[in-house]
Amino acid sequence: MPPTDRIRDHAGQGAPTVAAQRTRRRLRADRARQLADLLRRQVLTGGCPDGTLPHESALAAEFRVSRNTVRQALDLLRAEGLVERLPGVGTVVVAEKYPHGLDRLMGLAETLHEHGHVTNEVRTVGLIPGPALVTERLRVPPGADVVCIERLRRLNGLPLSLDLTYIPLDIGTALLGADLENTDVFRLLEAVTGRALGHAEITLEAVSADAHSAAVLQAPRGAAVLMLERLTHLCDGRPVDLEFIRFRGDRIAMSGRLHRSL
Amino acid sequence: MPPTDRIRDHAGQGAPTVAAQRTRRRLRADRARQLADLLRRQVLTGGCPDGTLPHESALAAEFRVSRNTVRQALDLLRAEGLVERLPGVGTVVVAEKYPHGLDRLMGLAETLHEHGHVTNEVRTVGLIPGPALVTERLRVPPGADVVCIERLRRLNGLPLSLDLTYIPLDIGTALLGADLENTDVFRLLEAVTGRALGHAEITLEAVSADAHSAAVLQAPRGAAVLMLERLTHLCDGRPVDLEFIRFRGDRIAMSGRLHRSL
Repeated sequence: MPPTDRIRDHAGQGAPTVAAQRTRRRLRADRARQLADLLRRQVLTGGCPDGTLPHESALAAEFRVSRNTVRQALDLLRAEGLVERLPGVGTVVVAEKYPHGLDRLMGLAETLHEHGHVTNEVRTVGLIPGPALVTERLRVPPGADVVCIERLRRLNGLPLSLDLTYIPLDIGTALLGADLENTDVFRLLEAVTGRALGHAEITLEAVSADAHSAAVLQAPRGAAVLMLERLTHLCDGRPVDLEFIRFRGDRIAMSGRLHRSL
Repeated sequence: MPPTDRIRDHAGQGAPTVAAQRTRRRLRADRARQLADLLRRQVLTGGCPDGTLPHESALAAEFRVSRNTVRQALDLLRAEGLVERLPGVGTVVVAEKYPHGLDRLMGLAETLHEHGHVTNEVRTVGLIPGPALVTERLRVPPGADVVCIERLRRLNGLPLSLDLTYIPLDIGTALLGADLENTDVFRLLEAVTGRALGHAEITLEAVSADAHSAAVLQAPRGAAVLMLERLTHLCDGRPVDLEFIRFRGDRIAMSGRLHRSL
C-alpha cells in the first residue's frame, strides 16, 4: 500500500477534478523531495558502498513510491551536484562535500585534516583604515588601520571558500610576512599572541552567489553559498579576528550537536 | 588614500594593460563585496536608525571607496532582498530576517517568540511504513510504521520554513490529534512523553530551492535555502524526531557561539 493511501492530505479534502490533479502532482513532488532528503544523507555519509545508488526499481520498491517519483528525486540530487546518471552504470555519487564541525572553534585546515590538504590563494593582503563597522567590533580606535586578508581556500585543489579577514594592526602586522598560503590564520594568531583562542560569535546564512563571488569560487552564478560571519576572541576575551566566509554550498556541510538545557 | 593603494594585490604584480584593466574591475568587485558584507550586518541587526542606509556619497566617504563601488555593493544587498532603492528616499531596509539560535535546542515558536506568532500549515500528516533510512536513525524495527508530518511554517503570516518530521509510532500517534497548527512539535513531544528533550545532532547546508520547494515557500526558483537536518533525542538518549527543514535563506540567520576548547 503506497504511503499516501494512509496519509491525510490537507489540500485534497473534497477537491474537484482539476484540483485533484494538481494535488496528485503536488503529492508526487512532495514525495520526491522527501525521498531526496533521505537519499542525500546516504550519499553524503558514504552510505553507497560502491559509489552508486541502488537501481530505480529497487528504490521504488524500498520507498513504496512510483519510478517517476524516484526519477524526480534523483533529478533533485543531480541538480545539487551530488549525483550523476551514467548510461549503463546507473546513478553514481559525484559529491565532494566535506563535514565542517559546528561544535568547536577550528581553522579550516585543522577541521579538514582527515580529508586532505588545504591551500590558500592570497588574493589581497595589507592595511586599510578600518571602517567603523570593523573597528567597533575589533575594539580598536575609530579609523585605526587594520590588517585585511582575503584568501581563496582550496581542499586538494578544489575551491571551497572565499574568506575575508580583518585583524587589529598590533597583531595582524606579524601575519603579513607569514606563510598564509599553507597555514590557518587561527594558528598564526595563537603563535603571534602566545595565547589560545577563546570563543567566537558566529552567524550562518544561506545566500545566492553574486556573479563575482561565483566566478572566484568557480561555481555557477546564483549557486547556494553558506555564509559564515565569525568574530573570534582570544582566551582573555579580546576580539582579534573578524571574518566573512563564503563556503560553496555543494562542498561543505556543517555538523554539530545542540542541547535542550544550557 | 584609498585602501587599495596600501594593499598588495597578488594578481596585479607586473600585469600588462589588459590584465591591469581586468585587475581593476576585479578589485572593484572585491571591494563592493567587502562593503556589502559589512553593511549586511548593519542592516540585519537594526543598525540603520530610521530604516534607511546613509546616502551613497556618505558611504563612499566613510568606506573610502568610489560611488560606483557603493552602488555595486548596494546592488548585491538588493539582489539578496535585504534593501530596496526608493527614488527620493534612498536605500531602505526591507529585510525580514530573523535570528535562530544555534546554541540551544529549541522549537521555532520558542526561538522566535520575541518576533511574532508562528503558525503551521499542516500539509501532510499520517503513518507511513518507515524507510530503512528513517527506522535505523529512530531505532525502531525495519519497516515499522512511523508518523510523518509536513508543515509549512510562517512567522506573522510570512513563509519561513518547510519542515518534514518523522516520529516513532508509539510517541507520534498522540500527535495526530494535537494542535499542530499552533504548537511546536518539540513541546508536544515533551508533553506526550513526560520527558524533556536532551540533545540533537544537526547538519546545516546551503542548497538552491528546487522549483517545487520554492513554490511552497513562495520564494524565487533557485533561491538559497538553509537546509537543517536534525535528529532529536529525549533526555534518556532515545531518538524521537528526525527532521528535514528548509529555511528561506532570506528570512533566517543562525547565530551561536563556538569555543576553542571543549
